[in-house]
Amino acid sequence: MAEINSQNALDFAFNPSSIAVVGASEQPFSFGYHFLRHLLDYGYKGVIYPVNPSKSSIMGLRAYPGLLSVPTDVDFVICCVPTDKVIPLLEECPVKKVKIVHLFTARLSETGRSQAVDQEKQIQIVADNLGIKLIGPNCMGIYSPAAGIAFGYDFPCRVGDIGVVFQSGGSATLLIQMGSLLGLSFSKAISYGNAMQISESDILDYLRDDFDTRIIAAYFEGVKNGRKFVYSLTETSKTKPVVVIKGGKGDSGTRSVTSHTAAVAGSQNIWKNVIQQAGAIEVNDLNEMTDLLMLFEYLPPVRGKRVGIIGGGGGKCVTSADLAEEAGLLVPPLSKGMRNKLKSIVPDLWDWLGNPMDFSIWGDSALKAMEAHQLFVESGDFDIVIIQVSDDNPLIPDMWSSIIKMEVEDIINLAAKKSTPVIAVLCGAKPGYDDLQNERWKTLAQQKSRLIQAKIPTFETTAEAVKALSRFVSYWQKRTAVS
Amino acid sequence: MAEINSQNALDFAFNPSSIAVVGASEQPFSFGYHFLRHLLDYGYKGVIYPVNPSKSSIMGLRAYPGLLSVPTDVDFVICCVPTDKVIPLLEECPVKKVKIVHLFTARLSETGRSQAVDQEKQIQIVADNLGIKLIGPNCMGIYSPAAGIAFGYDFPCRVGDIGVVFQSGGSATLLIQMGSLLGLSFSKAISYGNAMQISESDILDYLRDDFDTRIIAAYFEGVKNGRKFVYSLTETSKTKPVVVIKGGKGDSGTRSVTSHTAAVAGSQNIWKNVIQQAGAIEVNDLNEMTDLLMLFEYLPPVRGKRVGIIGGGGGKCVTSADLAEEAGLLVPPLSKGMRNKLKSIVPDLWDWLGNPMDFSIWGDSALKAMEAHQLFVESGDFDIVIIQVSDDNPLIPDMWSSIIKMEVEDIINLAAKKSTPVIAVLCGAKPGYDDLQNERWKTLAQQKSRLIQAKIPTFETTAEAVKALSRFVSYWQKRTAVS
Repeated sequence: MAEINSQNALDFAFNPSSIAVVGASEQPFSFGYHFLRHLLDYGYKGVIYPVNPSKSSIMGLRAYPGLLSVPTDVDFVICCVPTDKVIPLLEECPVKKVKIVHLFTARLSETGRSQAVDQEKQIQIVADNLGIKLIGPNCMGIYSPAAGIAFGYDFPCRVGDIGVVFQSGGSATLLIQMGSLLGLSFSKAISYGNAMQISESDILDYLRDDFDTRIIAAYFEGVKNGRKFVYSLTETSKTKPVVVIKGGKGDSGTRSVTSHTAAVAGSQNIWKNVIQQAGAIEVNDLNEMTDLLMLFEYLPPVRGKRVGIIGGGGGKCVTSADLAEEAGLLVPPLSKGMRNKLKSIVPDLWDWLGNPMDFSIWGDSALKAMEAHQLFVESGDFDIVIIQVSDDNPLIPDMWSSIIKMEVEDIINLAAKKSTPVIAVLCGAKPGYDDLQNERWKTLAQQKSRLIQAKIPTFETTAEAVKALSRFVSYWQKRTAVS
Repeated sequence: MAEINSQNALDFAFNPSSIAVVGASEQPFSFGYHFLRHLLDYGYKGVIYPVNPSKSSIMGLRAYPGLLSVPTDVDFVICCVPTDKVIPLLEECPVKKVKIVHLFTARLSETGRSQAVDQEKQIQIVADNLGIKLIGPNCMGIYSPAAGIAFGYDFPCRVGDIGVVFQSGGSATLLIQMGSLLGLSFSKAISYGNAMQISESDILDYLRDDFDTRIIAAYFEGVKNGRKFVYSLTETSKTKPVVVIKGGKGDSGTRSVTSHTAAVAGSQNIWKNVIQQAGAIEVNDLNEMTDLLMLFEYLPPVRGKRVGIIGGGGGKCVTSADLAEEAGLLVPPLSKGMRNKLKSIVPDLWDWLGNPMDFSIWGDSALKAMEAHQLFVESGDFDIVIIQVSDDNPLIPDMWSSIIKMEVEDIINLAAKKSTPVIAVLCGAKPGYDDLQNERWKTLAQQKSRLIQAKIPTFETTAEAVKALSRFVSYWQKRTAVS
């Protein structure tokens, strides 16, 4: 068989005509069960071959005793069998013209045991000799919503434009599930584990050239080839934002990396510099990642740091201004033009109002909320406007709710006009399920859903919003400076 | 009338026998409405006198045309009338032996207008001459759950041990409402606004000596008397943890402070040093504050930084270790004793396991979750154990739910044994209301409620947990060093 390169092989993994799940099972604790079930749940349209030596049918599909007994060629194999069965399986692959194999199989070099390390090396030698491309081992493999392939439950079925390259399958699963709550959706995701053959750099290269991917989310524990990685990350960051978590920074994280994917974590400072110099963006956890992805997903490029902040009472405004400046943003005073406009609307208040604009000053004045929000958004004085929903207004619950709903309505209407980009902040409170019986927390949770559905970047706290925003603006400033 | 000191006056504000709400109203946008309604809603047991010149009854209570027409003496007056009516009201107070007046009345010095500044000065002179103590102006006043007094809707009725001294009423309202979702409850809270007379230092002194207050939450924008403040904060921090937000740090925050409470924000560096040297603890927003209060509320003193982390898959464990170390905590390797115990339980895994302990390695082994958690908590190797609920486990939804519920059950049982203190982390995801239809998010929200009800410090992310924990441990280390 002519050798296939990594890029072509990944094409087959994301869009295979046929998949064999080797080690398919009806035992719901087994991954042979999960991977097969995901193909059914997410509506994979190609041909599925469950392979299991002791079953004639699994989940209503005809099962085959071995790969060789499958009636057609197979593009993609998902391998869930124990380590000692991997090499015999690989040896059968060329007969079936298999393009790429996902080795879910684990307990290899990540155990730190010399026998397992040797075993992993053996697998690699056999695969190299046979010209078979491998994803893994010790990973969750492929999520390709367009093809109906996934590696977890509750993944979005809709196809998006965020590409995911994650060394950790559990973290990739959380990213996709958490992101879906913020309205994020994904083009392709790959959890690549020990990176025995297909490496982080190969996947970055693939996602860079992938027409369906506009934004990239990455989690790396180590790299196989530093020079190649720096090149791939730099080239990719030139055309697409790459948001990176580096796993394994301190002593204990580095130890954990070894037992997780057997990667070499490397020096924290070198990593920091590499990410920065490549033009990628480092974040510290999945929440910071989804926050930033939300900005890339919903907002156009923002290249200035002037922030208008409106809504909420005095204390909230003061704290927000502090947080924004500490995050490196600018919160300029109101311009002369804006002050003149305010003077004509609220002659008794104009001199007292500022940026941030405290709702408790103008909330019951002639200045209507819609008008105030609009002034900020249409002034041209700001690069971005943060509208804080006034959840600290002191009114009785039903009036309180009306204010919240009206402000959210305003935000949605203003964002639709696409003048200055808008970010919404509401509900820093953390209700448990029981608390949602209360109208206050129910309203906030409902309005959050509404904002997300309208594709408006929505944060629970201003601290989170300005942290993400600062990174977002820095990225666009840097990218503009380069190009 | 013999002059009353601030401490005695505050006693009356928190426990008055009678309250006159001057400017009481049935107009639901007015504060004369809110303050009266709060007394009824929260079951104030003393005598309530609504005062309004044009009503004979308000909310079913007999109303009086003026303070002088009220039939008995009055301990506490809540003043909601416009600025020009304040001095005539104050002049009537001695006749009724009023001990303290809460001036909700605003639009004074915080407007920045010279006439209003003069007016505020006039009020102060009159009050001083008459020997009347004032809270405010421009503030929300008193929350005293034991007495049935409150300044917002949806405040907890239960009496707790957190005392609140907040210059901002809106932020105090959010603190109390948000805190209640984490099971926090309050002894007394005061929003004191422009601090014309009763100052932040007076209130700190009061809360320091208050038998019902064990923990203090503070929000300051400026101080009236720096030397007195440093003394009060230092003395108070010696016996009770004081968690402080300083509002007004950068340029725009400082501007906002002026228009909010007319305070002088002061230098950011001086404030940072004052708070630190006093032994108080600075946080940046209400979320960081409630997170830290939760630790003081639920945990005994913790004076060591050795953290055990257990639960969640490999990527989650790696990131958690990184976050904990970056927050200044220690994540030591497993001790020899612990490794020996593991060897006897899981001879095939013991050498591979570490701290953090990755659920995906041992999740389906002979080591049961309860036993693993228990090993960590009872080892004596850690000063605190963070149990991460394994929401990244890859199982089918109903098994996934069982794992989550079982782990939460474990946490509750272990915490009840009161050996090593335990913190729970679950659900960094941010579901909107619609998402709670999904079993996954519903389960996490339900289990969060369950943990909070069991009084276990529960965080949505490890990043938040370790940030709060690091401050918590530093406080206790410092306090031990001093005493």
